[in-house]
Amino acid sequence: MTAKITTLMQLSLVICLSIASSFVAGQALNSEQKTQLKQLQSTALQSQLSYQLIESLTTEVGHRLMGSAGDEKAIIWAVNKMKALGFDKVWTEPVTGSYWLRGTAKAHIVAPYPHDLVVLALGGSVATAESGITANVAHFETLADLQAIPDNSLEGKIAFVSYQMTRHIDGNGYGPAVGTRVNGAVVAAQKGASALVMRSVGTDNNRIAHTGIMRYQDKVKKIPAAALSNPDADLLLNQLKRGGEVSLYLNITARTDAEVVATSANVIGEFTGSEKPDEIVALGAHLDSWDVGAGALDDGLGIGMVMAAAHHIGQLPQRPKRTIRVILFAAEEVGLLGAKQYVKDHQAELDTHVLGAEWDFGIGRIYKMTPGVGAQSLNAIRELGQYLAPLGVALSAENNGRAQSDMGALSDAGMPSINFSPDGEHYFDYHHTENDTLDKVQPEALKINTAIYTMFAYFAAQSSADFRH
Amino acid sequence: MTAKITTLMQLSLVICLSIASSFVAGQALNSEQKTQLKQLQSTALQSQLSYQLIESLTTEVGHRLMGSAGDEKAIIWAVNKMKALGFDKVWTEPVTGSYWLRGTAKAHIVAPYPHDLVVLALGGSVATAESGITANVAHFETLADLQAIPDNSLEGKIAFVSYQMTRHIDGNGYGPAVGTRVNGAVVAAQKGASALVMRSVGTDNNRIAHTGIMRYQDKVKKIPAAALSNPDADLLLNQLKRGGEVSLYLNITARTDAEVVATSANVIGEFTGSEKPDEIVALGAHLDSWDVGAGALDDGLGIGMVMAAAHHIGQLPQRPKRTIRVILFAAEEVGLLGAKQYVKDHQAELDTHVLGAEWDFGIGRIYKMTPGVGAQSLNAIRELGQYLAPLGVALSAENNGRAQSDMGALSDAGMPSINFSPDGEHYFDYHHTENDTLDKVQPEALKINTAIYTMFAYFAAQSSADFRH
Repeated sequence: MTAKITTLMQLSLVICLSIASSFVAGQALNSEQKTQLKQLQSTALQSQLSYQLIESLTTEVGHRLMGSAGDEKAIIWAVNKMKALGFDKVWTEPVTGSYWLRGTAKAHIVAPYPHDLVVLALGGSVATAESGITANVAHFETLADLQAIPDNSLEGKIAFVSYQMTRHIDGNGYGPAVGTRVNGAVVAAQKGASALVMRSVGTDNNRIAHTGIMRYQDKVKKIPAAALSNPDADLLLNQLKRGGEVSLYLNITARTDAEVVATSANVIGEFTGSEKPDEIVALGAHLDSWDVGAGALDDGLGIGMVMAAAHHIGQLPQRPKRTIRVILFAAEEVGLLGAKQYVKDHQAELDTHVLGAEWDFGIGRIYKMTPGVGAQSLNAIRELGQYLAPLGVALSAENNGRAQSDMGALSDAGMPSINFSPDGEHYFDYHHTENDTLDKVQPEALKINTAIYTMFAYFAAQSSADFRH
Repeated sequence: MTAKITTLMQLSLVICLSIASSFVAGQALNSEQKTQLKQLQSTALQSQLSYQLIESLTTEVGHRLMGSAGDEKAIIWAVNKMKALGFDKVWTEPVTGSYWLRGTAKAHIVAPYPHDLVVLALGGSVATAESGITANVAHFETLADLQAIPDNSLEGKIAFVSYQMTRHIDGNGYGPAVGTRVNGAVVAAQKGASALVMRSVGTDNNRIAHTGIMRYQDKVKKIPAAALSNPDADLLLNQLKRGGEVSLYLNITARTDAEVVATSANVIGEFTGSEKPDEIVALGAHLDSWDVGAGALDDGLGIGMVMAAAHHIGQLPQRPKRTIRVILFAAEEVGLLGAKQYVKDHQAELDTHVLGAEWDFGIGRIYKMTPGVGAQSLNAIRELGQYLAPLGVALSAENNGRAQSDMGALSDAGMPSINFSPDGEHYFDYHHTENDTLDKVQPEALKINTAIYTMFAYFAAQSSADFRH
């Protein structure tokens, strides 16, 4: 290294320190609290608690779709764990909805060249006739291409949308891909198709399909909908490229039992604030998962992070000023039922939720935080940003952050929020698949993310800033 | 870059050129042939033929286990392709054996925490009773640990061997892992176990199990044998770590129909030598595959490479001096039946096979060649090494090369051979799984490897070197 470079680096350091010191005046945390914050960082970075919670949940419960036996076990698991972790209060709030049963899904190419296909029913799909459907395939590269053809022009055909999700660090390939999953069956039915088959919304190349929620519309015929694994979608395309007719067999036995109202619950635990117990810092994750895989990433990671973060703070000699509330939402995957119920149940006291964040975005390290708060509190947010910067978190210049998944519903209802963005490059390799298992958790990233959530929650609970819009 | 470094590089270049020129005297190829060799390299590097062959095989045939419908289709496919590619002679030689039918394999953890497991029967396994087996698990970290316990000490238990294959560039983690697959059921039966369950021999972390051949021994009870995916083996271990009894349910419906003698065939094609038609340069691959996946890597890659290599040489205005014979072996996966039959059928003329190489090692680029030839021909091999060096191939200092898989049987019978070693780091992520599909082929590595095989075959066919031991 040349002397010139060294001097430049020293100069930069001086500038950085100057910037840091400019935040000393009017800081949210006093020096004792700053010491505690550092201790919490150290505790979280050394603790394996968040990993242990995910290991326990995936080993002892496994997957847990709304209304299933696993869902029921998960609620008991969460209540018991919260009690064991020393939460001051633990309770459940009922959430009702319908219970969709996956049954089986089988598919194969009939002609020109027979092959078995790896396929999963989309969540909520109706069944095929018991004997299945055999039909020629009508191929569309995108949902827009399917939308563009005349209504009732696909009679007797299976619509196949082959759009492939792209990989990005912020997961922005998901948006353009997921529309087919959610709305594809309605569009295909309007065109007269007897079923929708789509390429999985996922970035991997495994013979493993990705499920996820889909929707029907009143007055539009309900047709079965399924996702092919990426390699199976490739194979179907390669047969289509040869120019002749390609026919598929599809058999799905899924059903939603309309008679049964399934009961689940939001599981809620608190460390009660010492000075302002009625002001709530909210940490969220969802307890349910798809019925494939073990829900280790989606959202075992969130469960582990927010429970561990609250526990670490609860181990301090004194409770922080504000209450820290952990909300483990029910039935996120099947349509944010737990979040909607929470907003309904807590409408009158939503303005006591002073700041909230959820974790429901998988494996990678957090690299950015985006606040969505009243402008008067941005200095406090910048102070938090300073504390989190050494963990690799950059503060976004935007102030339009919306909390992730369930808590997005609380953000929309007015709750000040922070959205923490992780490296999402590999998340959609595993999302909503059998491959969502414990081995995919990255313990080091998990420790860092848990530390960030711990420090965020402590900061928000000790700060006297008013984050409201 | 400093002037000093530039000068050093120029000096190195001069040294390299000097070394190269020292091979001019007594070279195997004359200047016209060297020009042809370069043309062949250029042709192979630009051609997509090897990829197209794999695409065709995996799309139009799919998997092809000895004796299956796919096997029959693959033989017809190979004969037709060889004819279309202009081979001078194409014929088949029958290979017989038994046909193993996989049926279904299901497993789940019964207690303490129920979970479905992803499992595949090992190739050749017998079935469980129709109602399956439910038994406590006896865990062993290695096959040696299982071997070390007293005979008949596992009555009423399922033996579980959890050894995990390690990842290496040369695939050397396979050897220590595969013994459990091949011999584990015999050892477990000797100990009195009712079934063997093992962690898959594979380096991936997918919910996809790896199959592969296993063996029984006369006078030892035949017990069912199955492989768990790596994440499922982890889950089972995590339940075992809790200390209590863990029980498994296993149901396998596989069978070998002893009444049926399955017929398959080695498919053989030649470009006949112009001067020494009775001297054979042999290129091998195997046409069969496991009945999961599409056999794109194992051994579609070999099929594509050796057929394309021979075709490129066959497009020259004149045939090389020696015959180039492509042998697509039957039934490699179930015990090298095609190779053993070939050695038997061609015993009398094996010494006319002047040099041979197979490709049955997957995706990665070749980085090394190891000859197994008579010492008198090592100068010629060094010359070949010079031609291949620009493609990244290092010549091993050893002269103990044995051809891969099937052709290993020909090496053992005395055929001079070359073993080309590829980057095998990712091969065992996909080996013997449903994930062995076209998308795993790396087109650029395939082009380079095809160029290497093309140049190797041309060199061996034009050279007058005697490679015999």
